[in-house]
Amino acid sequence: MHGQNSIGFQRSAEGTLSFKSSNPSSGEKFQTAFIQATPDEVNRSVELAANAFITYNFFAPQRRAHFLNEIAVQLRARADELKSMFCVESALTAERAEQELQRTIFQLESFAKALNEGEFFATIDNSNEDNFLAIVPKLQRRMQGVGPVVVFGASNFPLAYSTAGGDTVSALAAGCPVIVKAHPFHAGTSSMVAEAILVAAQITQMPEGVFSHLLAEDFSVGQQLVSHPGIKAVGFTGSLEGGRALMDLAAVRREPIPVFAEMGSVNPMILQADFIAKYEDQLDSIATSICNAAGQFCTQPGLIFVEECPKTKGFITSLGNRVADFGTSTMLHSSIAEKYNALRQKAVSSEIEQVFEGEIKGENQGKNTLLVVTMEQFCSQETLQQEVFGPFSIVIHYANQQELFKGLQKIAGALTASVFTEEQMDFQHPLIQLLSSKVGRIILNGLPTGVTVSSAMTHGGPFPASSDGRYTAVGMGSIYRWLRPVTLQNFSQ
Amino acid sequence: MHGQNSIGFQRSAEGTLSFKSSNPSSGEKFQTAFIQATPDEVNRSVELAANAFITYNFFAPQRRAHFLNEIAVQLRARADELKSMFCVESALTAERAEQELQRTIFQLESFAKALNEGEFFATIDNSNEDNFLAIVPKLQRRMQGVGPVVVFGASNFPLAYSTAGGDTVSALAAGCPVIVKAHPFHAGTSSMVAEAILVAAQITQMPEGVFSHLLAEDFSVGQQLVSHPGIKAVGFTGSLEGGRALMDLAAVRREPIPVFAEMGSVNPMILQADFIAKYEDQLDSIATSICNAAGQFCTQPGLIFVEECPKTKGFITSLGNRVADFGTSTMLHSSIAEKYNALRQKAVSSEIEQVFEGEIKGENQGKNTLLVVTMEQFCSQETLQQEVFGPFSIVIHYANQQELFKGLQKIAGALTASVFTEEQMDFQHPLIQLLSSKVGRIILNGLPTGVTVSSAMTHGGPFPASSDGRYTAVGMGSIYRWLRPVTLQNFSQ
Repeated sequence: MHGQNSIGFQRSAEGTLSFKSSNPSSGEKFQTAFIQATPDEVNRSVELAANAFITYNFFAPQRRAHFLNEIAVQLRARADELKSMFCVESALTAERAEQELQRTIFQLESFAKALNEGEFFATIDNSNEDNFLAIVPKLQRRMQGVGPVVVFGASNFPLAYSTAGGDTVSALAAGCPVIVKAHPFHAGTSSMVAEAILVAAQITQMPEGVFSHLLAEDFSVGQQLVSHPGIKAVGFTGSLEGGRALMDLAAVRREPIPVFAEMGSVNPMILQADFIAKYEDQLDSIATSICNAAGQFCTQPGLIFVEECPKTKGFITSLGNRVADFGTSTMLHSSIAEKYNALRQKAVSSEIEQVFEGEIKGENQGKNTLLVVTMEQFCSQETLQQEVFGPFSIVIHYANQQELFKGLQKIAGALTASVFTEEQMDFQHPLIQLLSSKVGRIILNGLPTGVTVSSAMTHGGPFPASSDGRYTAVGMGSIYRWLRPVTLQNFSQ
Repeated sequence: MHGQNSIGFQRSAEGTLSFKSSNPSSGEKFQTAFIQATPDEVNRSVELAANAFITYNFFAPQRRAHFLNEIAVQLRARADELKSMFCVESALTAERAEQELQRTIFQLESFAKALNEGEFFATIDNSNEDNFLAIVPKLQRRMQGVGPVVVFGASNFPLAYSTAGGDTVSALAAGCPVIVKAHPFHAGTSSMVAEAILVAAQITQMPEGVFSHLLAEDFSVGQQLVSHPGIKAVGFTGSLEGGRALMDLAAVRREPIPVFAEMGSVNPMILQADFIAKYEDQLDSIATSICNAAGQFCTQPGLIFVEECPKTKGFITSLGNRVADFGTSTMLHSSIAEKYNALRQKAVSSEIEQVFEGEIKGENQGKNTLLVVTMEQFCSQETLQQEVFGPFSIVIHYANQQELFKGLQKIAGALTASVFTEEQMDFQHPLIQLLSSKVGRIILNGLPTGVTVSSAMTHGGPFPASSDGRYTAVGMGSIYRWLRPVTLQNFSQ
């Protein structure tokens, strides 16, 4: 593990600042000192990217597919060391490491396949169109990349949403060079993945600068990148504060650029009385969705609206006990655990009915928590309406649809909403229509965690779930964040 | 002519401020006093729009098509009075009025046709997709409107890009209620069009609030609208200063929203030596593209790069004389003429080689102007690199491709670029590739003015041509500004 930045194909470590990643379970710091990129190194990475863009953007899509497939090959070749580093830097399980690696490879190969099959870049022409004017020019509309893209590694997905994750892959597929600002919590994993990408770029003869990898513990490198005139778009997965800070920085540039920030949400679940009547076999999976991986998913269900019926009290007690007994997991980092515990404490200190809490055994652990509140308590206290990132959910019981709708109106934009019911619901149902104005994905009788990679996926939602709800961060549609059209007039085919 | 705001289906004139539009040719003010909307009236229009959205957004697309077709019917019924008001408020010709009205109706009917044919709203599902996971849920991705939209009337297109223009029609097609802030220069034309829309809405039983029309002479009403939490997107055509101010306002909201500002550009033309060798029969059309309608088009060619060859001097002199002799047209408003003359004067006072200038006969006229500069003069003076909105162009002569590319690098994002040459060029040509990174439309041997309404059109470009070069403001693609996806998981068809 070299601890250096990769500026194009060159390693570089000109800085004097350095940091180490650590094992969140033991607190032990790893040996490698990662050297923070200097302003000069940042500038060089952007210049190389701008230069690479000129050629890379005009490669046939099949050439880019070749590159993406080779990244998959290089990741497979490093699978064991990658998964082992993943686990020690994140405290996530070996099973999760395997799952994320498979997902990362699937994303690479899916985009490569789509590029090879001519998707995304089909030309639209006007040869068969009517017009009110007698003479119209020949028009051909083609898509191309927007320019160099900065991707921020995500703390909670060291593989699938980080260095070779969804943002990077979709941007590379679009024709955009990528500069990754590694997440410092998993700088080792990130450096290994960067190595795989750079080896693949050289094997497939991509231009130098198509990918760079920068290390930093503080915000300065990210800020410099987002403000740099050579950067044309940004991908980010993380907290609302972090995402908003980048959005604000991008908006005050001389040339404002889009920031695609996926910032998580409260992901309401609605459990109707007909579901509650026979809830028993779902208890485990709901508790798992709340507590698994210390609840560190942007789709973790933070709010659970439960309709009142004879079995509601029993359901809440059973769920609360499962959550309390789930067994804690180490959180990704001490700073995440600290933030979790502060927000958790604030919520627990609000006016509530009841709380179920788990044991806590280690330093970087979050206490599994299920609060129970009335609709009135929920509606009157803003603290209860906001996301608490971690193994934490609030149960709100409601008497009827009118009360439920009042509660749902209090929720800001979210990634998902789940409805558990025996009822046959379609898009004409008032509840589904209300939810569709608030979220990007509605799940019938299913949990929000687990986001399928698909052309039909929407992983995004109205602000603050994401910076721009018109886009998905997962699936094939994610490429449209990095494409813009250019029309050719009077050109032959 | 009533001079009142339309808040949903109600006329309202609670304010104490009022203004009049005028005939730019004579300076004469019209009789009608337009009553500026009050903050309370603005709030009511947004509340009605938010309420209308809940139902309008879920109408079958065919119902919205019916509404759009009926607007066309109502515009046709008012054609004569509309065109006559258009001419006196804008000083544009009767021919132009007819053309814009036809274009407006064509846009309405094209979107209605597309909605009836099921475009834009086709569901994407994952039933035929492979996945790396054995079990994947059933996903259906459908498009819906983003919410209430504010559209600002454009001073230079009183019909086609104003009250029932491209922004309004695409937003209504998308399922978004629209609030139009009328342009004060043509408040009369705007009020007549608003009446047509409101009558059509009532005939086709659209919900109240699907359209409102607000009057204002100052910026306060527009600012209040863009900052209102109920508004979810903005459409604007106008100056860079105006567009940027709205972008900045939208970016600092608690929930930032997209502003689609189409702000014009320098629209470079490149005339290669092989073209110059036989330029004669194109002189008139180039001069017309520069001077027609007092050059008040966002696609007016502001920069003309001319390759040096034996006939270059003759070409420049002939073009300069045509521009000087073109005959002046009244500009849209005294404020536009004043701004034009100030910018024109600043450019003329720069270090230049030569200037051709027309006569000027009336108060609100802009002097037709063609400057001639060397590449060095162009590259070293920022004043010469910026748009001057009006009948003004700069000729830059260049010796070779290297010099040309140096000059083109100085240009900010633009809507169009034109290349005049005998050469067969395609997208692999270095000049076309360079231009494609700067503009949204590249025209081979054709003028930039005249923007075809088509699915293959891109009317947009990198900032500052537009706020977001990933979108077109003209043609069927313009609807995607106002749509976002929602995925339904586990729902039956």
